[in-house]
Amino acid sequence: MTELPPSAVAAELARYAALTRSAMEEFLVLGRPSEYLYELIREYPDRGGKGIRPAVLLATCQAYGGEVDEGVRAAVSLEMLHNAFLIHDDIEDNSPLRRGLPTLHDRHGLGLALNAGDALASLALQPVRADSGLTGRLRDTLISEFSTVIRHTTEGQALELGWRRDEVADLVPSDYIELAGKKTCWYTTVAPLRMGAIIGSHGMATLGALSRFGFYLGLAFQTRDDLLDVERDSPHGKAPLGDIREGKHTLLLIHLMTTVDDGERSWLANFLRTPSSDKTAADCARVLDMMEQNGSVDFAREFEADMAAAARATIGPAFADVPPSAHVDFLRGLVEFVVDRRS
Amino acid sequence: MTELPPSAVAAELARYAALTRSAMEEFLVLGRPSEYLYELIREYPDRGGKGIRPAVLLATCQAYGGEVDEGVRAAVSLEMLHNAFLIHDDIEDNSPLRRGLPTLHDRHGLGLALNAGDALASLALQPVRADSGLTGRLRDTLISEFSTVIRHTTEGQALELGWRRDEVADLVPSDYIELAGKKTCWYTTVAPLRMGAIIGSHGMATLGALSRFGFYLGLAFQTRDDLLDVERDSPHGKAPLGDIREGKHTLLLIHLMTTVDDGERSWLANFLRTPSSDKTAADCARVLDMMEQNGSVDFAREFEADMAAAARATIGPAFADVPPSAHVDFLRGLVEFVVDRRS
Repeated sequence: MTELPPSAVAAELARYAALTRSAMEEFLVLGRPSEYLYELIREYPDRGGKGIRPAVLLATCQAYGGEVDEGVRAAVSLEMLHNAFLIHDDIEDNSPLRRGLPTLHDRHGLGLALNAGDALASLALQPVRADSGLTGRLRDTLISEFSTVIRHTTEGQALELGWRRDEVADLVPSDYIELAGKKTCWYTTVAPLRMGAIIGSHGMATLGALSRFGFYLGLAFQTRDDLLDVERDSPHGKAPLGDIREGKHTLLLIHLMTTVDDGERSWLANFLRTPSSDKTAADCARVLDMMEQNGSVDFAREFEADMAAAARATIGPAFADVPPSAHVDFLRGLVEFVVDRRS
Repeated sequence: MTELPPSAVAAELARYAALTRSAMEEFLVLGRPSEYLYELIREYPDRGGKGIRPAVLLATCQAYGGEVDEGVRAAVSLEMLHNAFLIHDDIEDNSPLRRGLPTLHDRHGLGLALNAGDALASLALQPVRADSGLTGRLRDTLISEFSTVIRHTTEGQALELGWRRDEVADLVPSDYIELAGKKTCWYTTVAPLRMGAIIGSHGMATLGALSRFGFYLGLAFQTRDDLLDVERDSPHGKAPLGDIREGKHTLLLIHLMTTVDDGERSWLANFLRTPSSDKTAADCARVLDMMEQNGSVDFAREFEADMAAAARATIGPAFADVPPSAHVDFLRGLVEFVVDRRS
């Protein structure tokens, strides 16, 4: 096995992202009404992205003996679905920025953005549905993976939004694992691994060990995302301390909730109850101070390191049925890339 | 051919609605998180509905020689998709009431309601996908009809929301036909007719004349809906003059926009620009007065009558390939029912 330097991982990610975006073009309809719908659905894909999902899918497909061409339509579907999720998530979280620019609802109004998300989510399945390179049985298996992904993702999103709305204060880190497992891991890592293996192996792969690796990688990814929010110099394209302002159930916030003393608890509850637009930058900074003083940032860093270690330990069993390859080396390098990334 | 009295049509509608709702039960998941997701997706289906879509699909399926059992899963899918659309439409239109009760976002907050609509839209395709009574080819044809439906519906919704946001004032009745054709006819009448014929004929039916009949029936249906908004004593379960308050592009409003004099035009433009929650009941009533005085209500009534007449004239050709039956009689009675209805 070869150690891939982060720059090589980044280059591979960029290559997979570019070829997926290029294959997406055929499915991003140019039609009427363009200024109210079809231009909108192109905006997030045109802003780029890390491309982790297509890269994981395509590398896994090749590790299982498939060709890039066999997997690219599934990668396009997944990336389109991801962008549809982002549009609706940004509305649900009332986020101001996405990939460094105003969110879609901020630019076009809530109604048109919501509707564009609906259109994109439906169009997202076209590439797989129209993929004549797949047998009918494989297509059905993949479509069913997509509906599993949507189910887990909406369940995770429901937990997050419900906890926030009801000001649920007695959460513990295992709740975080459930939340991140559903809202992030399924569609970011688990499904791309599973779909890549299904396509590459023509439906013969066993998926249990792959899914387990995917959960660890996804949890490391989400925890890093949580940490990026508080690492102020990160150019991640979102608003500074945006998760704190939105009251997102990051691992840091959940840890903080379990550790604050009674005096801080009521201040924090009041802060979380305040609409994000009414929260001051000073109060967001105070939450960050509390996170640092209560050890929440360190706790998240340790959790991230544990998840990365678990991912390293499970990638071998995950790919035990296939020969070593540059593609598995890439995925191994991706574990390091995910936790080292600064955006 | 037999003339069905409206009470017989209503009884048939209720019967089809009940059997579809009952078959839906198996697909409305009972899972976790129930209070944040799975209870929400049941709320609109549990409030009932006219059941026009499943009735049209199932009657057409039988007219083409199929059995109710063969069509019921497609009817369930369509009705679930309809309810998912309603959740998102209510958010996009900021509607306060649906079927006589507060809208889903009003009860649970925007984020959870939006997310529940996403989950329901994805679950909606399960009944057709899991329908082992269909051949793989028929399933693919139906799934492709569903994606066509979603495409037209989101395009129509985009037009409506875009025109409203941009205060487009130079619309004419042919714009209304484009709008209603996309946002209403496709999923209310055209797709149910097409899917019923596809299933009943095992994919052999020709769909052109059926689609044409569906557009006329759907336009009559939507125009009646528009008129119900201004017929104040109608128990239709929405807020009185709700369309006027929301600034919806009903045929009445579009006609009014083309006929008001310059003095009224600027008042109307200002009214439409006011957020719906800031509009007074008196101002909404004034718009209704303007509609009456400018002949917009009469214009819509005549248009409705024209569309009903066109539906009556095209139902024969639509079903020319199949023998006369009680099912075609029901659909003929439905034309009268749609324009006579008071809710």
